[in-house]
Amino acid sequence: MTEGNVIDAFGTSEIRDYDKLFREFGVEDFTKLDAPDPLTTMRRGIVFGHRDLKPVLKAMKKGEKFAVMSGIKPSNYFHIGSKMVVDEIVYFQNHGGLVYYTFADVETLADNGLSFKESREYARDNLLDLAALGLDLDKAKIYLQSEEPTVLKQAHVYARNVTNNMLEAIYGEHPVRIYMAVLVQVADILLPQLEHGPMPVVVPVGFDQDPHIRLTRDIARKHKLMPPASTYHKFICSLLGVERKMSKREPQGVIYLNEDPKKARKKIMKYAYSGGKPTVEEHREKGGDPSVDVSYQYLTYLMSDDEKLKKIRRDYERGDLLSGDLKKILADHVEEFLINHQKKREKAGKKVDKILA
Amino acid sequence: MTEGNVIDAFGTSEIRDYDKLFREFGVEDFTKLDAPDPLTTMRRGIVFGHRDLKPVLKAMKKGEKFAVMSGIKPSNYFHIGSKMVVDEIVYFQNHGGLVYYTFADVETLADNGLSFKESREYARDNLLDLAALGLDLDKAKIYLQSEEPTVLKQAHVYARNVTNNMLEAIYGEHPVRIYMAVLVQVADILLPQLEHGPMPVVVPVGFDQDPHIRLTRDIARKHKLMPPASTYHKFICSLLGVERKMSKREPQGVIYLNEDPKKARKKIMKYAYSGGKPTVEEHREKGGDPSVDVSYQYLTYLMSDDEKLKKIRRDYERGDLLSGDLKKILADHVEEFLINHQKKREKAGKKVDKILA
Repeated sequence: MTEGNVIDAFGTSEIRDYDKLFREFGVEDFTKLDAPDPLTTMRRGIVFGHRDLKPVLKAMKKGEKFAVMSGIKPSNYFHIGSKMVVDEIVYFQNHGGLVYYTFADVETLADNGLSFKESREYARDNLLDLAALGLDLDKAKIYLQSEEPTVLKQAHVYARNVTNNMLEAIYGEHPVRIYMAVLVQVADILLPQLEHGPMPVVVPVGFDQDPHIRLTRDIARKHKLMPPASTYHKFICSLLGVERKMSKREPQGVIYLNEDPKKARKKIMKYAYSGGKPTVEEHREKGGDPSVDVSYQYLTYLMSDDEKLKKIRRDYERGDLLSGDLKKILADHVEEFLINHQKKREKAGKKVDKILA
Repeated sequence: MTEGNVIDAFGTSEIRDYDKLFREFGVEDFTKLDAPDPLTTMRRGIVFGHRDLKPVLKAMKKGEKFAVMSGIKPSNYFHIGSKMVVDEIVYFQNHGGLVYYTFADVETLADNGLSFKESREYARDNLLDLAALGLDLDKAKIYLQSEEPTVLKQAHVYARNVTNNMLEAIYGEHPVRIYMAVLVQVADILLPQLEHGPMPVVVPVGFDQDPHIRLTRDIARKHKLMPPASTYHKFICSLLGVERKMSKREPQGVIYLNEDPKKARKKIMKYAYSGGKPTVEEHREKGGDPSVDVSYQYLTYLMSDDEKLKKIRRDYERGDLLSGDLKKILADHVEEFLINHQKKREKAGKKVDKILA
């Protein structure tokens, strides 16, 4: 493991030094912005960075037209980390933004080999989560890449604006199909402005997706569109440890939004990596370490009550709260959340049928 | 100039040795086939080769389903050489084939930088010629690549079947946008079978387009479709000489199907390269050389009456016909053809409006 940051849109990204990220890539500190009614994740630096977000916030405050564009590769079910991005999209929608959301099935095919049919099944499930998390589907443009002729077509237009050298410099060497998917994604990000004319657009992403943003900003300028803004959030870690990424290759470390709440509870109680001390006695005396305790970390994402979270932290550091107690707090929180969430998913069923028939 | 054949789908192709072409590429002699009611160009070896045409002819004779798939880059007006391919398409349509015809505007954008809008204007004009040359537009599927979601989408599916090495081996090194256009073209060629199920499909092409056929045949097999068949025709030369290709960079050497018949007549009289001798006396004595006389060559494409053509050749070789006489025969023929053709173009106007609104 190196000390540096590895940014790869089609591989493994490791971000170990956020300050270096700011210095190297021109990303700015999100917390220095004056975002109205910020989300928990914004207040706590989980949404840590942005590029060019000021025009978006300005439009938002003035009630002018702006859009939020986002999407996902429909190759898996949503997990508890997926919620973060959706919360951001809902945030911008609630503040007046037009929503564009793409299921990147062209990329899933190119990168993962999933057929359009397989992708559609995941997309349907993801859509239930989007609705349950508060996205107003009726006021959003939601589509599969393979079903949206405009992005498929525009990909060829934007292909005129890149050279093979540029693509290799930004993404490394890849099969042509990957570059094709990249250009479809550029078309996704520019679609709101293609349909509504130039306006500020924000794209909430994990930092590993920043190459797409940089490329699209460059191409936008060539087409007299506004370079899209972006926000960057930290990735949620695996239940198995703060250094591990949530991945379906380690299912015991993932909490899916469609999984049985009781199973999720058991998973947390059994697997959540603890920041506690080896014995109860030592823990009572020296206290736990919240920075490596996964239960605590999850609560920073999920528990919006600042005072409550602060008390939990203090009690844990003091040794008043044991790791088992902390796990139980998280397990209660997640179980309750999943029960409510899944009720909302059920209600959303019919709407989803309309959008992805 | 080399002795060999240069086959480049995106550059300059020079075919100097047709026998070598047969030996190297597995192309077979068209004249050895038993095609019913062959066209003038088929009888005279202008349509000189084919790959795998027998299943098409078999389907044709048995009245079974088959298709002819063709198209053009809509980057120019049709000229007298364009007529040849259209004649072939009409031939297969008249013998029961489903017709698919694509205006490859994605390729025009990638290769020539023409916008979709510019391409559409040329496509409209080309469509008038297609109708005037006898294609039944009502029974054909005619489309612009950029307007046909299925081919744009399938290009990404077929991209899974190629590696960068394959593409470079077949086409040489090109910008990604060119490979993208190649994959759209593969989708064009496979579209009839995607829509109608596996069946014989023939693609009439110039030999420079053979790389597309080879690639598509390979991909077809992977998708359990029939590898498309092809026919190959010789290119018509420039008016300025048999060794020169008709090109809009030398407009005095091109006869467009939409140009003023009187201007075409003058062009022929002024520029047609002659196979005659320097002086009338020498010509009367030694005779002319039809193999380099452009007027004679054009007549082999355009004059269907074998006996009449044979007599012209004999008289020219004997010196009874002068180069000026030969030019006049061609000029008369072309002028009359263009007058009739352009009447038919006018009639086709409304149908074209319906197809490319």
